[in-house]
Amino acid sequence: MKKFAAEFIGTFWLVLGGCGSAVLAANFTSEPFIGIGLVGVSLAFGLTVLTIAYALGRISGAHLNPAVTIGLWAGGRVEASTVLPYVISQILGGIAGAGVLYVIATGNGSGIGNFAANGFGEHSPGGYDMMSSFVTEFVMTFMFLIIIFGATEKDRAREGFAGIAIGLALALIHLISIPVTNTSVNPARSISQAVFVQGWALQQLWLFIAAPILGAIAGGLVYKHLLRKTEFEPEDRKE
Amino acid sequence: MKKFAAEFIGTFWLVLGGCGSAVLAANFTSEPFIGIGLVGVSLAFGLTVLTIAYALGRISGAHLNPAVTIGLWAGGRVEASTVLPYVISQILGGIAGAGVLYVIATGNGSGIGNFAANGFGEHSPGGYDMMSSFVTEFVMTFMFLIIIFGATEKDRAREGFAGIAIGLALALIHLISIPVTNTSVNPARSISQAVFVQGWALQQLWLFIAAPILGAIAGGLVYKHLLRKTEFEPEDRKE
Amino acid sequence: MKKFAAEFIGTFWLVLGGCGSAVLAANFTSEPFIGIGLVGVSLAFGLTVLTIAYALGRISGAHLNPAVTIGLWAGGRVEASTVLPYVISQILGGIAGAGVLYVIATGNGSGIGNFAANGFGEHSPGGYDMMSSFVTEFVMTFMFLIIIFGATEKDRAREGFAGIAIGLALALIHLISIPVTNTSVNPARSISQAVFVQGWALQQLWLFIAAPILGAIAGGLVYKHLLRKTEFEPEDRKE
Amino acid sequence: MKKFAAEFIGTFWLVLGGCGSAVLAANFTSEPFIGIGLVGVSLAFGLTVLTIAYALGRISGAHLNPAVTIGLWAGGRVEASTVLPYVISQILGGIAGAGVLYVIATGNGSGIGNFAANGFGEHSPGGYDMMSSFVTEFVMTFMFLIIIFGATEKDRAREGFAGIAIGLALALIHLISIPVTNTSVNPARSISQAVFVQGWALQQLWLFIAAPILGAIAGGLVYKHLLRKTEFEPEDRKE
Repeated sequence: MKKFAAEFIGTFWLVLGGCGSAVLAANFTSEPFIGIGLVGVSLAFGLTVLTIAYALGRISGAHLNPAVTIGLWAGGRVEASTVLPYVISQILGGIAGAGVLYVIATGNGSGIGNFAANGFGEHSPGGYDMMSSFVTEFVMTFMFLIIIFGATEKDRAREGFAGIAIGLALALIHLISIPVTNTSVNPARSISQAVFVQGWALQQLWLFIAAPILGAIAGGLVYKHLLRKTEFEPEDRKE
Repeated sequence: MKKFAAEFIGTFWLVLGGCGSAVLAANFTSEPFIGIGLVGVSLAFGLTVLTIAYALGRISGAHLNPAVTIGLWAGGRVEASTVLPYVISQILGGIAGAGVLYVIATGNGSGIGNFAANGFGEHSPGGYDMMSSFVTEFVMTFMFLIIIFGATEKDRAREGFAGIAIGLALALIHLISIPVTNTSVNPARSISQAVFVQGWALQQLWLFIAAPILGAIAGGLVYKHLLRKTEFEPEDRKE
Repeated sequence: MKKFAAEFIGTFWLVLGGCGSAVLAANFTSEPFIGIGLVGVSLAFGLTVLTIAYALGRISGAHLNPAVTIGLWAGGRVEASTVLPYVISQILGGIAGAGVLYVIATGNGSGIGNFAANGFGEHSPGGYDMMSSFVTEFVMTFMFLIIIFGATEKDRAREGFAGIAIGLALALIHLISIPVTNTSVNPARSISQAVFVQGWALQQLWLFIAAPILGAIAGGLVYKHLLRKTEFEPEDRKE
Repeated sequence: MKKFAAEFIGTFWLVLGGCGSAVLAANFTSEPFIGIGLVGVSLAFGLTVLTIAYALGRISGAHLNPAVTIGLWAGGRVEASTVLPYVISQILGGIAGAGVLYVIATGNGSGIGNFAANGFGEHSPGGYDMMSSFVTEFVMTFMFLIIIFGATEKDRAREGFAGIAIGLALALIHLISIPVTNTSVNPARSISQAVFVQGWALQQLWLFIAAPILGAIAGGLVYKHLLRKTEFEPEDRKE
């Protein structure tokens, strides 16, 4: 039960913080203020994961993302019985975060526009087509899972650093791919925005469910079969 | 006594560094220089907490914020007798930081304008109304306390990382919410600016005392009853 | 075998993430979005190394760079027999990363222009001549190796931090030198872009192979003979 | 001897990296590139210290700054006999870094202008007068020393984090004060630029020697008498 609360609150924070920074602050230009831009949004997404990893990782592992939970299952790291309750907690937490963001964002009389919804084709920020967008979401989630698996191996010297590595991995993924799809790699994040935006965001939602999950499964399988630690093996090194 | 000195100096630094970066550098545009913008201000606030956490956290816990102290009390982490002297030290330290900033900022002949005061409605940077501002300050402080509680649980592997997680949490909070209220989540920070700006800043000060404190108490109670560690419980994990 | 896979995937990520952020997001300006600029690209390159260091460093050491592998050999840290297979894995991984980036980047109908190729003289972003560019690449790689050697010394207290120090060192190097050469310090990264850009990028490629490798060898030798730890030697310190 | 080499190389890197980022990249605007701005320069200065702390801190303590060495002496942390050779190594290393930067920066036919020299009054980026500038340099260096002392206390849980805290403290100091004095807090950094710029930079150099050193001594004395650890004293905490 505490696990599900942790996933709910963590995904609530990921959406409120990540999408919130995009909606409220990315393009803020009331002179002489200048907004946080894509760098700020990228950092914000990464820091939601970093902060929750240290705050609640001990309880639930801080997945905050259905694709991560499914990829960890594919790679043999979590039990199958964990998947469904985690995914439900994440989706509900994300929608709750989007709801609070809705309340805040409409408090100055403006609408929510496209919120921070993900899109491709004409709804890609940079006009990238469906194939390019699918490849991007697939590969970014694939690498995200490789990093999550590797950074959470049991290893005394690097223990404790996983939250930094994984949080900053998400920041990095946003630095690369916001222009392509507005960056999802997380179905819960995409769903949370689409239910408020409706229309095109719901129609394109399938890609932001399918591509991250498939990429995550591929990452889990590649890690398990190609890179997994079988016993402790420090890198070779002279001296 | 050393504890109060640590809280005084730490909150002095939070205001001088955080508000100072906003007043001196955020909108600096003497060509060809460009200012640090909202990203820079967000990082500055976060880094004041991060640096003091490592420098003086050992002495006083580095709260630097009346809402944090009260929230930690609500969650059962600090004694009731700690609250008042900590809060007084924080308010005095914040005002001292604002005083030094006043001396520096007026050294080029300009006035202090609105300093880095917090506001809502017509004094919200992005024109957000009172309700939206209250929700923002409440929720941001609520999550700040969840992160503070979680990141400071006794846990050998993650020990030492709390300063990073908590400092970057404050940076994240600023990345999200500067356009709404100029971001407080800290009554001492708001008071320190309002006493120099006077007028509207004093009239709106109640919100930046009430919302952070209520949010912090809610965070402390939720953590205590829903998420608190009762015994050591590593996340479930196969292998 | 696992080592070569780790170097392949890691360098794949360095090129896809670092060069990808430059190609896709650096100058993105579809209103009201503003791109990540040189700060964002610098962070992206640094974070590719940071994330892979924590994810796969245990397996291969996470060199991701022929100059690093050769410099570590020059400084006596890796076996000569390691060099060739590592370098080949890195070059192939880099080209694979560039290939995926090609697929993504052309997905909005635009060409790849100069991709993120490195250049000097008329192909230097800031018009720096060959000598200035050579000095820059040599000195930056020299310091990169000094930091890599020092940060990976066996030292209980600082163990685990190497990935942060080395990743952020690469970010710092980009903050300094993108205007000069678009920053290489890594022949695999330069090769990966030149094979797609062809023409001038291939003609100027020699400098981005020679200068980083010579700088890295110099770094390895200076560290080995001037700074290397012979036994554990904590800094002198009273009290 | 190795200590002095470490201080030389470290201060070389601080000037080449910090001032180099300011000279080469801060205002770079060859379309469509946008420069790193004050945020980038602030990060660059901070990262020079962070990277050298992990690379060479074990050898010399990574002071890289005459004011730091003198402040550590005032606070009883280093021997008096350490001060002069450290300070000489730092000044020579800084000048060497400025020399390499001179070679690079003039490689596109432009002059060095004001390099990254520190100034006040008409040479303050934001036109801040001498008093304001003195207060800024004094207080910033004072707080820098408080953070250095506190973050390097022996404390098992926080061991290893000092390089992050101290490096990011220098980044923070730059986020606040570049508009005032272009930020020194380091006489070796100021000297290195002034010897190339000559004229006004040499005439104003006294302030950037006196204020940081006095601030550092004050920081050392306050820490020693008010905040110093006498025995291990974890913060009070219930549970």
